[in-house]
Amino acid sequence: MPPIAKPRNKSARAAVMAAALSVAATPQLRADEGMWTFDNLPVKLLKERYGFAPTQGWIDHLRLASVRFNDGGSGAFVSKNGLVLTNHHVALGQLQKMSTPKKDYVKEGFFARGFEDEIACPDLEVNVLVSMENVTERVLKAVNPASPDKEQNEQRKAEIARITKASTDQSGLRSDVVELYQGGEYWLYRYKKYTDMRLVMAPELQAAFYGGDPDNFTYPRYALDFAFFRVYEKGKPVAIEHFLKWSADGAAEGELVFVTGHPGRTDRLNTVAQLEYARDFGLPLYLKVSAKTRADYYAYAKLGVEQERRSKDRIFGVENAIKAVTGEYEGLLEPALLKSLKSAEDALRAAAGTSDSWGKIAAAVKKSGDRRLQTTYRRYNATKIAGLANSIVRYVAEVAKPNDKRYEEYRDSSLESLRFRLFSPAPMYPDMEEFLLARVLEDAVKELGESDEFVAAALGGRRPADAARELIAGTRLFDVAERKKLIEGGEKAVAASNDALIVWARGLDPVYRAQRKWYEDEIESVIVAEGKRIAKARFAAYGRSTYPDATFTLRLSYGKVAGYELGTTMVAPFTTFHGLYDRAIGHSEKPPFDLAPRVKAAKGKINLGAKLNFTTTNDIIGGNSGSPVVNAKGEYVGLVFDGNIQSLVGRYAYDDARNRTVAVHSSGIMEAMRGVYGMGKLADEVAGK
Amino acid sequence: MPPIAKPRNKSARAAVMAAALSVAATPQLRADEGMWTFDNLPVKLLKERYGFAPTQGWIDHLRLASVRFNDGGSGAFVSKNGLVLTNHHVALGQLQKMSTPKKDYVKEGFFARGFEDEIACPDLEVNVLVSMENVTERVLKAVNPASPDKEQNEQRKAEIARITKASTDQSGLRSDVVELYQGGEYWLYRYKKYTDMRLVMAPELQAAFYGGDPDNFTYPRYALDFAFFRVYEKGKPVAIEHFLKWSADGAAEGELVFVTGHPGRTDRLNTVAQLEYARDFGLPLYLKVSAKTRADYYAYAKLGVEQERRSKDRIFGVENAIKAVTGEYEGLLEPALLKSLKSAEDALRAAAGTSDSWGKIAAAVKKSGDRRLQTTYRRYNATKIAGLANSIVRYVAEVAKPNDKRYEEYRDSSLESLRFRLFSPAPMYPDMEEFLLARVLEDAVKELGESDEFVAAALGGRRPADAARELIAGTRLFDVAERKKLIEGGEKAVAASNDALIVWARGLDPVYRAQRKWYEDEIESVIVAEGKRIAKARFAAYGRSTYPDATFTLRLSYGKVAGYELGTTMVAPFTTFHGLYDRAIGHSEKPPFDLAPRVKAAKGKINLGAKLNFTTTNDIIGGNSGSPVVNAKGEYVGLVFDGNIQSLVGRYAYDDARNRTVAVHSSGIMEAMRGVYGMGKLADEVAGK
Repeated sequence: MPPIAKPRNKSARAAVMAAALSVAATPQLRADEGMWTFDNLPVKLLKERYGFAPTQGWIDHLRLASVRFNDGGSGAFVSKNGLVLTNHHVALGQLQKMSTPKKDYVKEGFFARGFEDEIACPDLEVNVLVSMENVTERVLKAVNPASPDKEQNEQRKAEIARITKASTDQSGLRSDVVELYQGGEYWLYRYKKYTDMRLVMAPELQAAFYGGDPDNFTYPRYALDFAFFRVYEKGKPVAIEHFLKWSADGAAEGELVFVTGHPGRTDRLNTVAQLEYARDFGLPLYLKVSAKTRADYYAYAKLGVEQERRSKDRIFGVENAIKAVTGEYEGLLEPALLKSLKSAEDALRAAAGTSDSWGKIAAAVKKSGDRRLQTTYRRYNATKIAGLANSIVRYVAEVAKPNDKRYEEYRDSSLESLRFRLFSPAPMYPDMEEFLLARVLEDAVKELGESDEFVAAALGGRRPADAARELIAGTRLFDVAERKKLIEGGEKAVAASNDALIVWARGLDPVYRAQRKWYEDEIESVIVAEGKRIAKARFAAYGRSTYPDATFTLRLSYGKVAGYELGTTMVAPFTTFHGLYDRAIGHSEKPPFDLAPRVKAAKGKINLGAKLNFTTTNDIIGGNSGSPVVNAKGEYVGLVFDGNIQSLVGRYAYDDARNRTVAVHSSGIMEAMRGVYGMGKLADEVAGK
Repeated sequence: MPPIAKPRNKSARAAVMAAALSVAATPQLRADEGMWTFDNLPVKLLKERYGFAPTQGWIDHLRLASVRFNDGGSGAFVSKNGLVLTNHHVALGQLQKMSTPKKDYVKEGFFARGFEDEIACPDLEVNVLVSMENVTERVLKAVNPASPDKEQNEQRKAEIARITKASTDQSGLRSDVVELYQGGEYWLYRYKKYTDMRLVMAPELQAAFYGGDPDNFTYPRYALDFAFFRVYEKGKPVAIEHFLKWSADGAAEGELVFVTGHPGRTDRLNTVAQLEYARDFGLPLYLKVSAKTRADYYAYAKLGVEQERRSKDRIFGVENAIKAVTGEYEGLLEPALLKSLKSAEDALRAAAGTSDSWGKIAAAVKKSGDRRLQTTYRRYNATKIAGLANSIVRYVAEVAKPNDKRYEEYRDSSLESLRFRLFSPAPMYPDMEEFLLARVLEDAVKELGESDEFVAAALGGRRPADAARELIAGTRLFDVAERKKLIEGGEKAVAASNDALIVWARGLDPVYRAQRKWYEDEIESVIVAEGKRIAKARFAAYGRSTYPDATFTLRLSYGKVAGYELGTTMVAPFTTFHGLYDRAIGHSEKPPFDLAPRVKAAKGKINLGAKLNFTTTNDIIGGNSGSPVVNAKGEYVGLVFDGNIQSLVGRYAYDDARNRTVAVHSSGIMEAMRGVYGMGKLADEVAGK
């Protein structure tokens, strides 16, 4: 499951995908459907379906024990000493950054036997949602309904900037205004932020990601996809009041369970025109680019053992994305899905009277298609170092403006987190950057032609390979101090820099700004304004009886432990260690079905019948990776790490018959810690002993 | 997998299905495709693909070690003392017949510790193919090409009757003339026949059929679907020269393996018109009737514990058939399949010039549809006792005629086997017969109306329930001696009988004969004659470079041990005992995923990593149940018991990517015999110790 791309990220990919925003709904919820905000949990539904009525204390405890991994992912506190449990694949980026040719934590795993062995992550930030305030009235009041759409958009953005700045200034907390129900509501979310995260334990990649790409998004599954971090402040483990108590037995078949976490993005309220665009152009193009990226990574990895080591998390990431988007794409190809969404849309259109918002969105989507090659192949941030150069050039220009006139991602409330990323000491490899940059530039030439403004500015008449070599050879940005100097020196320092990549990014900046302006003025403003009109009609009809599309903010979903029908048989809700060894032997232990040596050696020492993975009906999506599964008592019964392949269409609609959340079972984690990895002390901490 | 309906059986079902006979082919074989006759093995292909060249001794040994179960199924000799290994589900009918309310071998299994404990089966006949003789020339010579089609048909049938009679008279062996390539060739097959079969060992149904109907035709699978019989003659175990040596380790992934056995029926050479008829009418109607039959069995089984016990093999049978035919039906619904068959047909039509055989078959098929309700709902043999009554009435009339004028199934060469079945002492239950007969008559009234000739004759003005009650109360046919008396008394005894069911069957006989005459004259003769013309064109083009459609006669298929792609992952070629316990725990041990008590208790005593089931690319179909899987050395490596759900379309076409044979692994059988069932002595016999 993808640690999701953050929704605010205006990358080329996001721009393409954004041509599938907002709008069109049915109030008919399927059983167990919904990613609910914590201010509006489906209390009535829970009571009716499961006879369960959560108290406010239960709700607050769950919220405060939930953790957002800002790189995309979720987690939860599981001890009073700041221990956070998440997925191995959420931790993978950090593991890769902390590894060296001599200490490969990705391959070998990492096991701290005491606090003193825990090692600091280079650039990991996590957030805890400490307060939520409804600011809908304030935001709406700031908007003059008589103004043109574009101005209304700016008025709203400016007011949101003022709210977040005031909040940050006053509370010192990270403050975001979250738009829900496509503008039906606005909420100020305040987060406690942690940046001193230390790695405590991670299994070997082969144990965590058992079955590799073939088994990804597949069930039955046998993955130890877990990792422990510990939150530090001032050099010490943080004392945590709200953490989840461990359930040794986990949940039984049919038992009510909850998932808290940060689903990244759903498009369930999009218009049919937007979905058709995604089906016919957006997703196929994305898959084409991703396939090329995968080929580039493989080509680099083949250069040697060390290159292969460096490429692991990227290959995982791109293969994971390809499989996920393929699932979404195949979901959209299913005529029944679009037909059902179309009839919901028709009902709403009938209710909404003479509005032509749907037609206007369809026109804007069509128009976005005219430049879809540009928005796809102008990959400003396609390599790490190139992305940093572009961000630095943009940063200094934006912060020179008043807060409410900046691009959203450069507003005061986001700057601290942004600088944390810009100044990350995580390793980059010049040869890898050059290799990949050359490929990206070659693709741009091939798809856009040499006369494209981006191509012309990026190459300056050179061949892609030459440009990449000169740019990487001529930059000092691999040095964190150099990046700090430029950010601190501001516009003047950047303008005066002769760093090859900064010069390059300066040349690209006007192209980027023109492209973004076109997108925001011609496409986004229409989709947002008309989307808001549709949302208003829908909100008038259904209000808060339903849940808003996912926004990478904290949600709760409910469901039960359940298998599902597949083909002509029943998939069991639980797997066990027996199943892991069965699958390994069944494949003659050939990769990716071979066993990590510690796991193979543990066969005689563990309870083979211990539950390993399980499935529930909870409604989740990418970003929920690492979410806790809790029972009605608020106990930790499982760790979300995937959805089955049938859940991927969840981006557009929830299918209660076959959509399943896939989690590591609490007893499987415990059995592995004690029986496979000899981490008895950590297991005791988790078990509260 | 279905112990197949015998192809010669002219039951109503066969009549419906027969409206999908013969014709139209491509010579393009898929990898590992083919059910080859032993006189024409694909020696060149084997050499090219696998570098293997079988000797004539190897081929003969395999043939003589192969056994046909005449109720539908296959098996093989596995010891010099006449031990035959087949599937539990092939043995199921006998197990049911041998069980009583106090000794339920179906539920509890059966375990003979020595020869003295082996018990005789009531009516089980097996055959071994001892010789094959090409009689094509003789058959073709007997046919005058100047005669009308109908007469040619009779000339051919008469010559075949003469050949088989002469062979039986001369050799004392069961003798059948087999039509291959839709009349391209005719072969005289002689069989050694065994009728004193004794049961040696059968696991509990829950172990043999683990996962029940949901897991049937499913893989991964964890079934101990095996049973042992021993062949006796003159009260002693038969000494067998040709038996298969046991391989303790079985076959490795990718290894070349062979399956010998008796595939019942394929329709790969049917015309597209015939397949479209099957898709649009034949199969849906069959599934409708079967669903009703299943409901009737369930209704009877619900009447009590004993009724449930009696119903088990029937419920298995009908559910198995429904799942199989649903798979075939869904295969036909796949447009790509018919499209590819259509293009092969077009190519052959082009090669065949101006022939309108395809059009004539299409017209005959369409015409058969006019009476499809009659051929479906006039169920003469729908209950056991009713079937016996009809057979007795027909038997005495047919045997009074010259041999070559009789219905095929009453010719001399078949009479001994037929009498073996008619005089079976297997239990029948009057209340069950009455219950089911009433339901069948109700269905006939509902679907055909009271004025239908069958309905009128069967009810004689009574309500169905009354008719069934009176017929069952008024018959003495439950007594074997009574049946013998009638058969021995011939036409006179039958004409004089006042037995309620014999009187009833006498009344139905003219209706049956008229209906069969219509079918043979109007439909079958056209399909056969035109089918033969098409076959002649095809045989001229491709000859023996391909294999004939299945005919429930001995075939060999080759392939390799291999998993397959499913959804987005790889299904492993092997499962182990680990997987069995995983699936049980995963389903919280709820039926049909609970463990038989002996299997549950064995968990600590067996090698959990022993291979249990496995998949191969061999091309098989119903009737191959119980077939041995042998390696290139001719050793026994597995026991075929199923095809995966993707193989069911194999009735119409072989799909090498996903069609898989499913077998019990030789080491799984051994592990179960020794570790689960304590049958060490039998295991030693099998292992040749």
